[in-house]
Amino acid sequence: MTPSFDLTAAPSVAPRAVFFVSDSTGITAETLGNALLANFPGARFERHTVPFVDSATAIESVERAVLRSAAAGEAPIVFATLKDAGIRARLAASATVVIDLLAGHLTELETALGATAETRAGQYHGLGDLEQYFRRMRAVEFAIEHDDGQSERDLASADVIIVAPSRCGKTPTTMYLALHYGLLVANYPLTDDDFPTDGLPRIVAPHADRCFGLTTTALRLSRVRHERRPNSTYSSLAQCTLEIRRAEDLYRRTHIPFLSSATRSVEEMSAVILQSMNLRDRPHERPLT
Amino acid sequence: MTPSFDLTAAPSVAPRAVFFVSDSTGITAETLGNALLANFPGARFERHTVPFVDSATAIESVERAVLRSAAAGEAPIVFATLKDAGIRARLAASATVVIDLLAGHLTELETALGATAETRAGQYHGLGDLEQYFRRMRAVEFAIEHDDGQSERDLASADVIIVAPSRCGKTPTTMYLALHYGLLVANYPLTDDDFPTDGLPRIVAPHADRCFGLTTTALRLSRVRHERRPNSTYSSLAQCTLEIRRAEDLYRRTHIPFLSSATRSVEEMSAVILQSMNLRDRPHERPLT
Repeated sequence: MTPSFDLTAAPSVAPRAVFFVSDSTGITAETLGNALLANFPGARFERHTVPFVDSATAIESVERAVLRSAAAGEAPIVFATLKDAGIRARLAASATVVIDLLAGHLTELETALGATAETRAGQYHGLGDLEQYFRRMRAVEFAIEHDDGQSERDLASADVIIVAPSRCGKTPTTMYLALHYGLLVANYPLTDDDFPTDGLPRIVAPHADRCFGLTTTALRLSRVRHERRPNSTYSSLAQCTLEIRRAEDLYRRTHIPFLSSATRSVEEMSAVILQSMNLRDRPHERPLT
Repeated sequence: MTPSFDLTAAPSVAPRAVFFVSDSTGITAETLGNALLANFPGARFERHTVPFVDSATAIESVERAVLRSAAAGEAPIVFATLKDAGIRARLAASATVVIDLLAGHLTELETALGATAETRAGQYHGLGDLEQYFRRMRAVEFAIEHDDGQSERDLASADVIIVAPSRCGKTPTTMYLALHYGLLVANYPLTDDDFPTDGLPRIVAPHADRCFGLTTTALRLSRVRHERRPNSTYSSLAQCTLEIRRAEDLYRRTHIPFLSSATRSVEEMSAVILQSMNLRDRPHERPLT
């Protein structure tokens, strides 16, 4: 068989080196850096993350890596989130392209607040952390216990109960909301057994006000299920079409909000659920970082 | 009892309104915005997140909220990640303080790459997403199945096995690595039963090269356990001291890397584990977003 794409069109240039350099985890630098790079779909990148750059020794090793990479090709692109001005200056001296994701905005913020930023490498960890940690831990454990309708215990405490047919994205969305927002999230599968009746499954019905439905397209569901059980009734397009139609009918009939996971990332679904269920107004509005 | 802090020193000014405005989930705006605000520990903020601002209607409602808030006190601070230049211009016209986390860096990146950014609101969702989605889903399911030593099945596939005494932070760290990096992470508890012997628990011993230990301080462990079972032997300082000493001895004797969770967030622990186990070199190096 001839491949349907043109191999001669494959890019021949070496990928551009990208460094994410941070005095903390590097997660912010990676997240924002990747969001920026995504606007250049024609370019190829070779990514390196260097977290915990908070000392002279650490910045020296970054300098060496950047210089090595510069000698091998085009100037690497460095995304930086560094609070220490001395470390920032050393990085600026060794790399041609430094995109500083922090320092400039800190100056803007100082002007807006009329206050001086109390920058220091690393982060503060006080008692607040311990409380946040308890909440996050409890949320993750609640999510594990209540995954896929495994437990009825304490379901009344749930902030959200995600309902959907198998493989519509309940579990990753549940875990994201638990881990990042400390919310108590249960999820419950809709199976064929639920559909002779008119309402929500018996166990979740008393909590209808906290239910949120997921759906997807039959084609996508069939592909996702095929990954788990190839060539089964479960993964057939006919079965997927039927289950999705029944699920959407149920959501409409019981007036529970719902959303398609077909073209949305787990982050996007979580953001919609937070918004739709008014969970942003709660004290645990902010993502836990 | 008299409180040991001075109530008269409590801040009397109203908190400053902060808006995180995004054409996508708002997660990047919140993450970086909060990282910036954390440098002003003396200030108080009232935070609002407005995701999915990708239309004239959506930006109108932001304009109204910002103006309302400005009328009530000081000019609100708006952190923005908006790709559409028209929407950005409207926001700039209605808010005094807009900290643009995206547009300026996009210009820097255009210069560095010699290419024009292909910006558009929302994100691309192609086949790549489906593969990433499979990986993330499998990782979260693996983490749930292998939480707290619940299953031996397919343990050989694990990228990392986190071992630690109860309540040192195994579960949230496991879930973070699974959800954000698509890694297969198991975790296994160290109990009193494991300590008459010299080595790792029988089930994880064959995979010692992929084991990573967690520890903490006895005081913190005692407080965390107290939350679960107050005034028990389990949460006593003596028991916690003993378990931590034994666990650290075990890590040293079996040469497995370990880390204290006492002063680290889940994100920081994940970053150290990735680094220490060389998991950043894998194809799934980048955080899934």
